[in-house]
Amino acid sequence: MKKTMHIMSEAPLNAETPLDNLQSWITSNEVFFKRNQEMIMASPVAFESWSLSIQGRVKKVIELSFSDILSMTKVEVANTLECSGNGRSLLRDKAPGNPWTIGGVGNAIWGGVRLSDVLVRAGITPEVRHVGFEGLDNPLTTGTVKFIRSIPLEKAMDSTILAYEMNGEPLPLEHGFPLRALALGWTGANCVKWLSKISLLEDPVSGYFMDNVYRIFQKGEEPGSGKVVTTIPLKSIITSPANGAILTGGLVVIRGAAYGGEADITNVEVSVDDGLTWHAVEFIGPHERYAWRRWEYSWKTAETGMHTLLSRAIDDRGQIQPMSASWNVLGYGNNGSREHAVIVTIQ
Amino acid sequence: MKKTMHIMSEAPLNAETPLDNLQSWITSNEVFFKRNQEMIMASPVAFESWSLSIQGRVKKVIELSFSDILSMTKVEVANTLECSGNGRSLLRDKAPGNPWTIGGVGNAIWGGVRLSDVLVRAGITPEVRHVGFEGLDNPLTTGTVKFIRSIPLEKAMDSTILAYEMNGEPLPLEHGFPLRALALGWTGANCVKWLSKISLLEDPVSGYFMDNVYRIFQKGEEPGSGKVVTTIPLKSIITSPANGAILTGGLVVIRGAAYGGEADITNVEVSVDDGLTWHAVEFIGPHERYAWRRWEYSWKTAETGMHTLLSRAIDDRGQIQPMSASWNVLGYGNNGSREHAVIVTIQ
Repeated sequence: MKKTMHIMSEAPLNAETPLDNLQSWITSNEVFFKRNQEMIMASPVAFESWSLSIQGRVKKVIELSFSDILSMTKVEVANTLECSGNGRSLLRDKAPGNPWTIGGVGNAIWGGVRLSDVLVRAGITPEVRHVGFEGLDNPLTTGTVKFIRSIPLEKAMDSTILAYEMNGEPLPLEHGFPLRALALGWTGANCVKWLSKISLLEDPVSGYFMDNVYRIFQKGEEPGSGKVVTTIPLKSIITSPANGAILTGGLVVIRGAAYGGEADITNVEVSVDDGLTWHAVEFIGPHERYAWRRWEYSWKTAETGMHTLLSRAIDDRGQIQPMSASWNVLGYGNNGSREHAVIVTIQ
Repeated sequence: MKKTMHIMSEAPLNAETPLDNLQSWITSNEVFFKRNQEMIMASPVAFESWSLSIQGRVKKVIELSFSDILSMTKVEVANTLECSGNGRSLLRDKAPGNPWTIGGVGNAIWGGVRLSDVLVRAGITPEVRHVGFEGLDNPLTTGTVKFIRSIPLEKAMDSTILAYEMNGEPLPLEHGFPLRALALGWTGANCVKWLSKISLLEDPVSGYFMDNVYRIFQKGEEPGSGKVVTTIPLKSIITSPANGAILTGGLVVIRGAAYGGEADITNVEVSVDDGLTWHAVEFIGPHERYAWRRWEYSWKTAETGMHTLLSRAIDDRGQIQPMSASWNVLGYGNNGSREHAVIVTIQ
């Protein structure tokens, strides 16, 4: 891993993509954010000893080898992945957890198979409503529950893949080699890495990582209440100039990204006067359903001094990114517009 | 550079992307094909000492620093780049030059600026018809002409970028750091690396690399005759199974890529009986104007024995990839369908 990543913890490994690497449509594998609850295997599992078991409420328990997976119909999808807690440290009221700023997000081209194609092989019985994922990571301490998660059957059948490639390379160990679940447009917590077992279930998985965390709840509410974190919220970020930058006046190019999970980004607006007036941006580069859109706005600076830049994304459902995210105890889904202060010196 | 590349020569460096790395929409930087006429600098030029000069028939000679380039409007484009000589060794009648098979091609997301935006800064005088590019590579022997090339003004203004990013990373030294020309949909010879000088011209650049090579001509014709190699021809390749593969029968997934320079790929057809019958494929993954499209066909094998697989691409202009490319002295533009023999054993 490049030294340039912002490492929040080593065990488990949690590291944020630095601003320099948030400037392009593709986020390269080496600097793609890393978020773990448990310990990553010391070395990759051997292809020969790895297999994926599909069990639970299936018509027939099956076991797929890696070459079985490779022989299936392939998909390649541009998908922006964000950590559920990205932006947590930018909340006005603090919340416990990793202090992500804006770099708990990245965009990659993922190659793999449709989860639906795998499930159909095992046969889905009528009572199935949820799909559970278990990986080969190691619980941090004896007795710690494993990181097991489930998603609703509908999402599993409609838009979830099992990925074995990332940006044209075999999925790196740190990103779940040899196979990870990828619920398209949903946060990382729904995308179990080092996948080894899929269970078809009547009810959601229960346990710490489903019931106690990755839920949106308020103070005084029980853990286990609230909605499970699923889709990535509508959001835009300014990636250039940096917050706090000192700029020579004239024409300043403001750039960033906008994404909205399962929603399509239709507009991004920029304000250079702390939200008083808003301007449409130009989009840059590829436009793919689950991927962020890069954008740019050329700002003709007129006055020296401090200016507050803001951006807001608008999606195809007419939703507008909020100025402030709604707060929750564990600080998930911070999609508020980030105030970006820059200083313009000489004109 | 990964050892897995097929190195054809070390000085200058010419290396082909192996089949294993032609399986995804994105070709990663490390294994992207490398084609050089001259020697690459031993180490990257320092940003501070690099500049781009725009001269010739301009209104005003200008010199741009790297930060000038970064401050301009950005573009990000998915573009498939192919070597003019890719496929040469697969021609039935041999031609001199590097023995490319199918791996002198790759697809990347390139970030940079529009060439038109740069030229407008210098001012284009009415007599300009061509744009010349010169890079910082070193002629192999004293007195050797430099690798200087030109493209018509129309292409320069319409769809040529100057790239400083490749797949989310700074452009690697081997691919032209800090800046390379990229005439979208045109072969590599039109895309000068380590760019340092752009000249606005009335006539095309003359010299060895414009007049003697990178031209389509027949035996007996003078060098200097024939058309300059520009757009990448309409082509499809089978990337899996490998040519010569021995397969267990049943369902065999045939995969590949199709590309056509400036043309959009609308259909790909596969034959499993040496061209007798043809079947439509399914497309996989992103669809971007200048990028290849990945495709797949599920072949229900019925008979054991040897089978000849073929693929052919069809573009939005109604053109069909030929079974055999038209031959030329230097073996450019081999876009013939490649016979792919596989053996099916037990059913």
